[in-house]
Amino acid sequence: MSRSLPRRVVAEFLGTGFLVAAVVGSGIMGERLAGGNVALALLANTVATGAALAALILAFGPISGAHLNPVVSLLAAFEGGLPGRETIPYVFGQFLGGACGTLAAHLMFGLPVISPSTHARSGPAQVFSEFVATFGLICVIGGASRQSTQAVAAAVGAYITAAYWFTASTSFANPAVTLARCISNTFAGIRPGDVPWFIVAQFAGGGAAALLFHWLGASPQTHAEKVRLDPGRGQ
Amino acid sequence: MSRSLPRRVVAEFLGTGFLVAAVVGSGIMGERLAGGNVALALLANTVATGAALAALILAFGPISGAHLNPVVSLLAAFEGGLPGRETIPYVFGQFLGGACGTLAAHLMFGLPVISPSTHARSGPAQVFSEFVATFGLICVIGGASRQSTQAVAAAVGAYITAAYWFTASTSFANPAVTLARCISNTFAGIRPGDVPWFIVAQFAGGGAAALLFHWLGASPQTHAEKVRLDPGRGQ
Amino acid sequence: MSRSLPRRVVAEFLGTGFLVAAVVGSGIMGERLAGGNVALALLANTVATGAALAALILAFGPISGAHLNPVVSLLAAFEGGLPGRETIPYVFGQFLGGACGTLAAHLMFGLPVISPSTHARSGPAQVFSEFVATFGLICVIGGASRQSTQAVAAAVGAYITAAYWFTASTSFANPAVTLARCISNTFAGIRPGDVPWFIVAQFAGGGAAALLFHWLGASPQTHAEKVRLDPGRGQ
Amino acid sequence: MSRSLPRRVVAEFLGTGFLVAAVVGSGIMGERLAGGNVALALLANTVATGAALAALILAFGPISGAHLNPVVSLLAAFEGGLPGRETIPYVFGQFLGGACGTLAAHLMFGLPVISPSTHARSGPAQVFSEFVATFGLICVIGGASRQSTQAVAAAVGAYITAAYWFTASTSFANPAVTLARCISNTFAGIRPGDVPWFIVAQFAGGGAAALLFHWLGASPQTHAEKVRLDPGRGQ
Repeated sequence: MSRSLPRRVVAEFLGTGFLVAAVVGSGIMGERLAGGNVALALLANTVATGAALAALILAFGPISGAHLNPVVSLLAAFEGGLPGRETIPYVFGQFLGGACGTLAAHLMFGLPVISPSTHARSGPAQVFSEFVATFGLICVIGGASRQSTQAVAAAVGAYITAAYWFTASTSFANPAVTLARCISNTFAGIRPGDVPWFIVAQFAGGGAAALLFHWLGASPQTHAEKVRLDPGRGQ
Repeated sequence: MSRSLPRRVVAEFLGTGFLVAAVVGSGIMGERLAGGNVALALLANTVATGAALAALILAFGPISGAHLNPVVSLLAAFEGGLPGRETIPYVFGQFLGGACGTLAAHLMFGLPVISPSTHARSGPAQVFSEFVATFGLICVIGGASRQSTQAVAAAVGAYITAAYWFTASTSFANPAVTLARCISNTFAGIRPGDVPWFIVAQFAGGGAAALLFHWLGASPQTHAEKVRLDPGRGQ
Repeated sequence: MSRSLPRRVVAEFLGTGFLVAAVVGSGIMGERLAGGNVALALLANTVATGAALAALILAFGPISGAHLNPVVSLLAAFEGGLPGRETIPYVFGQFLGGACGTLAAHLMFGLPVISPSTHARSGPAQVFSEFVATFGLICVIGGASRQSTQAVAAAVGAYITAAYWFTASTSFANPAVTLARCISNTFAGIRPGDVPWFIVAQFAGGGAAALLFHWLGASPQTHAEKVRLDPGRGQ
Repeated sequence: MSRSLPRRVVAEFLGTGFLVAAVVGSGIMGERLAGGNVALALLANTVATGAALAALILAFGPISGAHLNPVVSLLAAFEGGLPGRETIPYVFGQFLGGACGTLAAHLMFGLPVISPSTHARSGPAQVFSEFVATFGLICVIGGASRQSTQAVAAAVGAYITAAYWFTASTSFANPAVTLARCISNTFAGIRPGDVPWFIVAQFAGGGAAALLFHWLGASPQTHAEKVRLDPGRGQ
C-alpha cells in the first residue's frame, strides 16, 4: 500500500467505473433479450453484478483497497484506516468513475451517452430496503476484511448477488452507483428525485453497521486499511 | 474467540436474521417477477440463499462460528465445542433472529409484518427430504470445518444451493429458519402445523450425521469450536 | 489419511450417493417446475450438480480423497496413489452409493424406488461427448490436485457445470453415476442398453488424459493420494 | 515452470481448445433447448464459459500459466515474463487449439466440422465493446495474478461471466477464441469479415490496460511469469 494517492484514486475510478458499467450494461442486455420476463432480466443483471464485484475486488483490492463505495471510504476514514485528507479524492474518484461507467455502457449499447431515468423507486419500503442492504454490506465487509482480499471478494460478490433479490430496491447500497444510475433511462435506472433518500438510507445503514461492528470487536476496516497499518501481511 | 457471549449471540442473531430475510425476501421477489414460472422463481430463491449463506459465514464465522442453526449449536454442545451453558443463548439468538428476518423481509416488500403461511408441506416424502437434507448439511459442515472458515462458507453455500433442488422440501434443514418461515404467507412459507415434523426430521438427520462423522474420525465440530480449543489458528 | 479402509469406503459411498441424489433429484424437481422449458430444467440440474460436487469434495476430500468416480480410483491405482487391493472396495462403494442415491431421490419425490429409464442416449456423437467430457475431467483433476482440496473442489464443480452444456451427452463422465441413472426413468435417466458405450468412452477418455498428464509431468493423482504419500501437507 | 516448451505449448493448446469447445458447445446446447428465449440461451452460455475458464486456469495454470489468449501471451512477452522466442509457439498453440475446440464441439453435436458463420457483429458499438472487454480482462489479470493461481481463476471466470452481459459484443476478448468462432455458424459464431476489427480492438484494449497497470505499479504479469522469475513460490 505504499502506492501514491493518484495511483490509488485511479484504481477506485476504474473499479467503480467497471462496476457501474456491469450494472447498467447487463441491465440493458438482460432487458433486451429476456422477452418481457423481468425475473430473467434481473437474474442476468444479478449474475453479472455479483461476478463483476468479485473480479474487481480481486483486481483492485491490492492496489487501493477496492472500496468502490463512498460509504466504505467514509467509514474507513472514521476508523482511521484511510487518512482524512485522502477521503475526498477517494470519493471523488468513485463518483466520477461511476458516471463514466454509465457513459461507457451507453456507448457499448449504442444509446445516447446520458438520459435521465424515469424509473420510480420511492416510498418507505424502498428506503428501508436500502438501509438494510447497506447495513448488511458493511457487516459482511467488516467480518470478511479480517481475513483476506479473497474473502472480501467472495463475500461481497455473494452478498450483493443475494441482496439484489431479497431487498425490494434490488440493493443499490452505494451512493456512487446510485448517482451513476440516475443518468441511465434503462433497466437499472433510478429517477433523479429518488436518489437523495437512497443515499441517506445508505449512509444511515452503513453507519449503524459500523457502530455495531465496533462493539462486536470487529471494526469494519477494509483489508486495504489493515495493509496500511501492517504492511507485512498485505497479501 | 475470546469475545464475550453477548457479542457472539448478537452475531448469531444478525446472521440468522439476514439468512431468513434472504430466503423469504428473494422468494417474494422471485414469485413477483417470474410471471408464474415456478422454476425461475425457485432459481432466484436458490441463488440468493446460497450466496447469502456463503457471505454470512464469511462475515460472522470469525465472531461466533456462524452456526446460524440450532442443530449445529446443539451438536457442537454435545461434542464439547460449545459450552453447555452457552447453548440456550445461541439457540435463542437464532430463533429470535430468524423471526426478525421474516419481519424485515415483509417490511421491505410492503407486506403485513406477520401472516401465517398456508403453504402445505407435509407427508412422508417431505419429512424424509428434511432428514436427508440435514444429514447432508451436517456431513458437509463436519468435513469442511476441519479446513477453514472459507471452506465452510463455500461448502455450505454450495450444498444448500444444490439441496434446494434435489430434496422435495427444498431443504429447510434448519429449525430456526423453519419456524421463521411459518409466519410468512409467501413463496417460502410453511404451514405452522407442518413445522413440528420438519424440526423432528432435522434433528434426527443431523444427529445421525454427527454419529457417523464421529465414527469416521472427523467429528462435526464447527470451525469456531476448533478456534476456541486452539486459539493460535483462528484464521 | 491414516483412516481405516472401511471408513474411507463409507465416505466414498456417502459422497457418490449424495452426488447421484443431487443429479437425479434436481432433474426431477427441474422438470416438474420448468413448465416444459428444457433449458430451464437443465440449468437447475446444472447448478445443483456443480454445487453438490464442490460441497462433497470439500466434505469428503480430507477423509477418502473424494474420488466419487471409478475412473478416478482406477487411475489412482495405476499411478500408485491408491493401493491395488483397495481399488475394488473403493469402486464397490461408489457403485453401491450411486444406486442408493437414486433410491433416495425417488423416495424424496414419492416415486417408485426403481424404474428403468427409457431415455435414449446413443450414437457416435453421444459416445464421443463422453470421451471428451471424461478426458477434460481427468485433465482438470490432474492439474488442480497439485494444489489443494479447495482447488479440486472448485475446479471439478466448475468443470462439470460447464460440461453439462458443452457436451451433447450432458457429461455423465462417471461410470458409477451412469449406472445409477439407468434405474431412474426421469429427466436425468439413461436407457440401460446405452450404458456400456458410455462407460467404455469414459474409461477411454480418462485413460487418454492420464497418459497425457503423465507426459506433461503432472500425473493425475488426486489430492488425497498425495496426502497419503506425504502426510505432512494434508491440508 | 521448469517444464519444457513443448509441454507448455500442449497445455495452451488443450486449454484453449476446451475453452472454445465450452463457448461454442454451450451456445449450441443453449439455443437448442431455450425455445427461442435468447436470454436463457445466453445465460447457459455464460455459466458454462465462466465456469470452464475457472476450471481450466486451475488445471493448466501450474503447467503453462494458462494464458489461453494471444493478448495475454504478447503482453507477457513485452513485460519480460515470457521469453520472446516462446511467444510464437504459445500463440500458435492457442490458435490451433481454438480451431480444434470448434471442431470438437461440432462433432459432439453432430454438425459439419466447419461452417463459416453468418452472424454479423459489426459497427462501432461492437468494436468499442471489445476494447472495453479486453481492457477490463487485462486489468483483472494484472491485479489478480499478484496473488495466486486460485485468485486468477476466480477473477477471470467471474469477469467473463459479467462481461458476457455488460458488453454489447458478449465479450470475446481473445483473438484465438474470435478466430475459432468464425468457423461455427451457431449461436456463438461471428462472420469472418467482422473478425479483424474485433482482434484490433482486443489488442488495443489489452495494450492500454497493460500501460495503465505498468503505471499503477502492478504490471500485468501473469502468475506463471512470476513463477518463472521466482521459482520458490510457484505454488
